[in-house]
Amino acid sequence: MSTIFTKIIAGDIPCYKVYEDKHFFAFLDINPLAKGHTLVVPKIENDYVFDLPDEAYLELMRISKLIALAIGKAVPCKRIGVAVVGLEVPHTHIHLIPLHQDAINFSNPKLKLESDEMEQIVATIQAAF
Amino acid sequence: MSTIFTKIIAGDIPCYKVYEDKHFFAFLDINPLAKGHTLVVPKIENDYVFDLPDEAYLELMRISKLIALAIGKAVPCKRIGVAVVGLEVPHTHIHLIPLHQDAINFSNPKLKLESDEMEQIVATIQAAF
Repeated sequence: MSTIFTKIIAGDIPCYKVYEDKHFFAFLDINPLAKGHTLVVPKIENDYVFDLPDEAYLELMRISKLIALAIGKAVPCKRIGVAVVGLEVPHTHIHLIPLHQDAINFSNPKLKLESDEMEQIVATIQAAF
Repeated sequence: MSTIFTKIIAGDIPCYKVYEDKHFFAFLDINPLAKGHTLVVPKIENDYVFDLPDEAYLELMRISKLIALAIGKAVPCKRIGVAVVGLEVPHTHIHLIPLHQDAINFSNPKLKLESDEMEQIVATIQAAF
């Protein structure tokens, strides 16, 4: 069965897309810890990030840096934090999270943003590449 | 002034060293979120991870994968999580954190491990490379 991220990549589930190339895809986390919280995923269904072959893993990291730099220009924050957890969705995903005062805490309350605000964030990030 | 990590790398502050090469260094977090929690740092004093030049950034990520795979063999856990926060010490560091049930939460209580247990963890990780 396809993962939810494969369905998002295929367009079967809508998303706020930030980036796409042949092998990778990035979109806003629908339950963000901060405005601009983005997930970067490989298109292939690989569960554990460290099971990716070196080439794909390093390309995922290279693209995550490009996207993080764009988010950092687009969204007011101290810097972009990175987290890879992956205990819920069995499809590798890098969290890029704009940080303010706090460290990363996935038990913090998630933001609820309206769709027009999510679209505005996407547009601002895309303009920052 | 040197960062605390530069002092650790120089041997001026003791640590439980997991890995060292010409440009990178890794050691057990002294206040771990889980047994085997390791920090991977570049020897150069660079604050924000995404300010590293691509070559150094990708090499840091490549080495972090090698170390994560060793920790995963050495320490019972579901997988190794990754976090880069960097709001406290202005010297790039990758957290590699053995995960069990929970997501990453830096406000969770830290473990207090005895030095012989830390040394045992180091020996087990080093044997897993």
